[in-house]
Amino acid sequence: MEIKVIKHLLDETAKKAEEIRKLLIEKKVLMVNLIGSPGSGKTSLLEKTLAEFKGKYRCAIIEGDVATDRDAVRLQQYDVPICLINTDGACHLEPMSIRKALDEFDLDATDIIFVENVGNLVCPAEFDIGEHAKIAIASVAEGHDKPEKYPLLFNECKAVVLNKMDLAQFTDFDKRIFDESVEKLNGKVPTFETSCRADEGLEGWYGWLRSMIESVRG
Amino acid sequence: MEIKVIKHLLDETAKKAEEIRKLLIEKKVLMVNLIGSPGSGKTSLLEKTLAEFKGKYRCAIIEGDVATDRDAVRLQQYDVPICLINTDGACHLEPMSIRKALDEFDLDATDIIFVENVGNLVCPAEFDIGEHAKIAIASVAEGHDKPEKYPLLFNECKAVVLNKMDLAQFTDFDKRIFDESVEKLNGKVPTFETSCRADEGLEGWYGWLRSMIESVRG
Repeated sequence: MEIKVIKHLLDETAKKAEEIRKLLIEKKVLMVNLIGSPGSGKTSLLEKTLAEFKGKYRCAIIEGDVATDRDAVRLQQYDVPICLINTDGACHLEPMSIRKALDEFDLDATDIIFVENVGNLVCPAEFDIGEHAKIAIASVAEGHDKPEKYPLLFNECKAVVLNKMDLAQFTDFDKRIFDESVEKLNGKVPTFETSCRADEGLEGWYGWLRSMIESVRG
Repeated sequence: MEIKVIKHLLDETAKKAEEIRKLLIEKKVLMVNLIGSPGSGKTSLLEKTLAEFKGKYRCAIIEGDVATDRDAVRLQQYDVPICLINTDGACHLEPMSIRKALDEFDLDATDIIFVENVGNLVCPAEFDIGEHAKIAIASVAEGHDKPEKYPLLFNECKAVVLNKMDLAQFTDFDKRIFDESVEKLNGKVPTFETSCRADEGLEGWYGWLRSMIESVRG
């Protein structure tokens, strides 16, 4: 009986993710799912990207947070539609609430949806929310061993953003070990070395997103 | 039916935590549960503490990891009993596996058990594993908004270790905001400002642990 209940839930989740995927294809909207530890720089990366894309692409945000509207408030100044999902303690976003959030946007007038997941390197990686790509965001201050220690996200993602590069010189971070671990898990997945604070290294990330948007538009 | 299944599991978990609590009281062993984001410095804090307590207290380690034995291997040189729990992707430790791990130790010859939980600021805080104290470990590189954004752990913990203070000068970390958030959530809980890398600020943490060990001994 226990197994039946769990299977039923998983089926529902997979179905909802599939529904989202179809909707995004139909509307030609790219959706990326930003996943990383608390403090890896997900919101800062969004701030930079929204400023860069202003007037070029029509962006929308789904903001996942355990509590507070702090990140959503930070992003308000960029004048894009934001839907905040407060998970009330839950550790990840799931497709049911993402599907509801999509109803808040005019998808015919949207090029890209950024999902900022709950700060957590473990659970969000397990959930298919119908996105085109999971993005792994890691800060150099977390250490070079994170891909090896939390392999699922680095295995599933379509791009890695290695952020807070400005702090690298003050830590024992070994870029070679980080890169080798990522490559072992995920072949030639692109890694963008950035410092959102110093506004450095972001061009590659912007370019990758642009080509993703174009490919979804077809 | 779904609710029944879930309630049954919760009952089992609570019972197991209670069993652990009783055993620790009987054996006069302190158990602390170290919880923090990936890369906050949990293993480094353990390394420092094991070196400091060598020859003074009899320590043991329960090491929780999603994958790999990397942290357990790092700690081997301190010559204390280590039990590694690989959660195989799961995001937290629960009392069933902790109870089994305790059987690996000679509790009559142990003063303190350190549990290094899975790197995750969300889920581990939700689980009572029968410990005397949850310890919140945060790195300044994660930013001063973490207590407000992830309130449960900072509400539940009996001490806060604010680590990587050596990086504070290179970030926008605002200690006043951090402290105010912690105080709002948890009154006068002690916060220890440390740099494990620079070996600074650890005396207060050691002293707090010593007094905890003494109080459990009675």
